[in-house]
Amino acid sequence: MVILSAMNIIEPRILKGTRDFLPQDKAKRDFVMKRIISIFERYGYDSIETPVIEYAETILGKYGAEGDKLTYNFEDHGCRQVALRYDQTVPFARLYAANHNDLPSPFKRYQISRVWRADKPQKGRYREFYQCDIDIIGTDSLLVELELVKVMNDVLLDLGFEDFTIKMNDRALMDSVLDGVGVPAENRIPVITAIDKLEKIGQDGVWLEFDKIGISDSQKEELSPLLDRTGTNEEKLERFDGFMTKRIEKMLELSSLSDIKPGCLQFDVSLARGLDYYTGIIFEVVLNGVDIGSVCGGGRYDDLCGSFSKKEFTGTGISFGFDRLVLAMEESGLLEDVGLNSKVLVTLFDEKHEADSINVLEILHNGGINAEMYFEPVKLGKQFKYADKKGIPYVVVAGPEEVGNSSVLLKTMASGEQQEVALEDLINHIS
Amino acid sequence: MVILSAMNIIEPRILKGTRDFLPQDKAKRDFVMKRIISIFERYGYDSIETPVIEYAETILGKYGAEGDKLTYNFEDHGCRQVALRYDQTVPFARLYAANHNDLPSPFKRYQISRVWRADKPQKGRYREFYQCDIDIIGTDSLLVELELVKVMNDVLLDLGFEDFTIKMNDRALMDSVLDGVGVPAENRIPVITAIDKLEKIGQDGVWLEFDKIGISDSQKEELSPLLDRTGTNEEKLERFDGFMTKRIEKMLELSSLSDIKPGCLQFDVSLARGLDYYTGIIFEVVLNGVDIGSVCGGGRYDDLCGSFSKKEFTGTGISFGFDRLVLAMEESGLLEDVGLNSKVLVTLFDEKHEADSINVLEILHNGGINAEMYFEPVKLGKQFKYADKKGIPYVVVAGPEEVGNSSVLLKTMASGEQQEVALEDLINHIS
Repeated sequence: MVILSAMNIIEPRILKGTRDFLPQDKAKRDFVMKRIISIFERYGYDSIETPVIEYAETILGKYGAEGDKLTYNFEDHGCRQVALRYDQTVPFARLYAANHNDLPSPFKRYQISRVWRADKPQKGRYREFYQCDIDIIGTDSLLVELELVKVMNDVLLDLGFEDFTIKMNDRALMDSVLDGVGVPAENRIPVITAIDKLEKIGQDGVWLEFDKIGISDSQKEELSPLLDRTGTNEEKLERFDGFMTKRIEKMLELSSLSDIKPGCLQFDVSLARGLDYYTGIIFEVVLNGVDIGSVCGGGRYDDLCGSFSKKEFTGTGISFGFDRLVLAMEESGLLEDVGLNSKVLVTLFDEKHEADSINVLEILHNGGINAEMYFEPVKLGKQFKYADKKGIPYVVVAGPEEVGNSSVLLKTMASGEQQEVALEDLINHIS
Repeated sequence: MVILSAMNIIEPRILKGTRDFLPQDKAKRDFVMKRIISIFERYGYDSIETPVIEYAETILGKYGAEGDKLTYNFEDHGCRQVALRYDQTVPFARLYAANHNDLPSPFKRYQISRVWRADKPQKGRYREFYQCDIDIIGTDSLLVELELVKVMNDVLLDLGFEDFTIKMNDRALMDSVLDGVGVPAENRIPVITAIDKLEKIGQDGVWLEFDKIGISDSQKEELSPLLDRTGTNEEKLERFDGFMTKRIEKMLELSSLSDIKPGCLQFDVSLARGLDYYTGIIFEVVLNGVDIGSVCGGGRYDDLCGSFSKKEFTGTGISFGFDRLVLAMEESGLLEDVGLNSKVLVTLFDEKHEADSINVLEILHNGGINAEMYFEPVKLGKQFKYADKKGIPYVVVAGPEEVGNSSVLLKTMASGEQQEVALEDLINHIS
């Protein structure tokens, strides 16, 4: 397949923000992904898939100017403007708008795939990365939000994290406070954006931003509960007496009925989730003590498919940042080396014994054991080294002596123990 | 997330040659993919992953002019020429050239991912599709080729296909015949291309092409064994007495030592695998009686990483066309509906019984059972319909009566049977 001469060697490099995964890393990632999938499936979510390439009009204009700027888009061979998937929510909305008549309602789906953003790469941020999403369309019951809290909780516990906080707020509560204080519509977004920066710039920083927007001192006073994250969930709620706290109260009540650890779900009055077009309860999850930003977020949007359908569908969803979760697991010592696939290496004694090694390998495979055969009759030491490098736990030698006895020599690599084992017993000796 | 008004509805369509997969189709595809992966892993192949977007220079110039034309390439935000993966072999060669010092030798890997080709879509041919590849780098032992035959055989048997032919030829044999007949170097490719068309255009058609190339009548006579696919493997071999038949003979011998069904592996003297740069044994697999073209192909190339490294590495690999396999399974009745994830629907009797339904769901989840809860206290009939539409086999009702007895009503959807089951026994009633 390779037609260039050695004169034209191309440097074997990859684009910044993209990654190769060699077997050990890939095995670890597959392990984490399987665990996440098993929780999604435990809650009855089914997998769907959408194309990587879409019409540009499907993707652009959904994420604001910044999102459009970061979208990979180009003209295809038929002069169509196309774009690479930027997230999984918009393609899902497009799919649902086209297929909702054939799908159950409510519709629960999970989707795990890569997305692309021409962003500046940095720790935990890539240009090509995985999202793990679940969404539910078609019901405004708060039991949906409870389920999402439970899924976030179960995924993180299952991956081994013990100390995390699921932050929760209600966009409608924020709106009701801004309304009550008399913040005009055009200042709504700047005010929310300023509040969203609380963690980064502190309360004084937010005051300064409020000054720039033209928020009066008396308004600031009235808005101050939005910047006060002290106290228990109940104490925080009390500060919003008279505002739209109904859903937060109900969520805390539902959560207390479930197996969510008390204190894990925190009403966070300043949580705004950037400029996303959420309309109801919103979430963000942080791992306490791990400096990696949020590892999951989401919320409810009342008109998910608005770009693609005149019908209104309410949707609620969360998205896990897979690559950040893997990084956080590694930094927290939660992700040890995962064994590769081969459990047994069948060595090749010499060319005359090819048939014997082929036979031993077939016995192992028929017994359901992942095993491989060394392809060349080189010195056994070299074959053992190969097994060692791949971390293969057992090595089998089918030499002239053993073959004569209808047996093989079985070496357990960890202990160094060797024993002659009858061929018919071989499977039973591989644990 | 959706900011356009209902005035600007975008048609929810996808690009030709790309596909959405709804839950039932996705579940079927996942089922097939898991089976293929289990065979790859049984033989000790480990998974790797490469980026979807690569530098264009990595991808272009490796597949001939036609391949370059079909490659999706564009300029990224940093004015770099980039391209989407066209196959998995070239990115693998790039990865191996960069990492071979850290990898075991020989190196066995599998890779399953999407590739993109701006080809004309037709039955079984898409612009975005999956390849399932295994490759082995770093040994010229024919035991590698035997292993690939066994993997092809095991995958197809495992998917339920019973009647298939693994066609095999040796590029070196073809070359030795062309040499012997005195076909000049510049006519080599046109002659092989003509022979490759035998199935489509027949022997007379190939003769006509030979005439155009300037092959003399006496040369035609000598080349005629290359067009004769009659007889057994042994009879075909006899017609090449004096040419490079050593590897074919050895392959047939090795195959007879293994559990490959006699007749399944066919020496096909006209098999050329298009213009790919194979140098040794080549393969192609057809499903007899299924009109879908080849479902797997591959072979040995002596200088896999030539574009990326001055070192020479011999590689052998095969690639399954996943989408064609799925199509062929469906056409052959080998792919029935696969159950979706939920095994149990816990209904919601009324708002007062939320806590009870939450509790039942937690009992099921803690018992390792995939289950979901209906989110709204609508009429039970509607909730049962939802279970029916999703094919959920069990429905649980936790109404006032049952809750009083610490039990639930369990309905088996297939039989219609209903019984009251104590909560502590519930898990045991779900099979």
